[in-house]
Amino acid sequence: MAKVRVLIRPKGGILDPQGKAVERALPALGFEGIERVRVGRMVELEAEDPERLPELCEKLLANPLIEDFEIENLDDGA
Amino acid sequence: MAKVRVLIRPKGGILDPQGKAVERALPALGFEGIERVRVGRMVELEAEDPERLPELCEKLLANPLIEDFEIENLDDGA
Repeated sequence: MAKVRVLIRPKGGILDPQGKAVERALPALGFEGIERVRVGRMVELEAEDPERLPELCEKLLANPLIEDFEIENLDDGA
Repeated sequence: MAKVRVLIRPKGGILDPQGKAVERALPALGFEGIERVRVGRMVELEAEDPERLPELCEKLLANPLIEDFEIENLDDGA
């Protein structure tokens, strides 16, 4: 089994309301100097056949219309 | 500005209903051999003062009762 991490982010041009909400909340909590907040999802799993993971991401984990995904192999020291 | 990624996951002993939902959906989509699915969140941001990020995670980004967080520095080739 390969240990894998999938990172899912809003595509570059797509609004990220969660990220904006975080940015707006920061001053009231006393945080300054934090920018470009983007909120995405992370899925970690173990797979027998990692070659099918891009298909899995497109069909189930991400919404390819508005999200990009990145697959990291956690077994090679990443 | 330091580029940083925060990974937020359900704590070990905590149920992960999103992960279970993914696992249950897999067979109908023709995927086998995928286990231990855990769904978390990812926040990427740029910070002037990365030393305050653990505090930011505890106060705003994560729920420390049920979630663990991990902060990755994206500037050092990680």
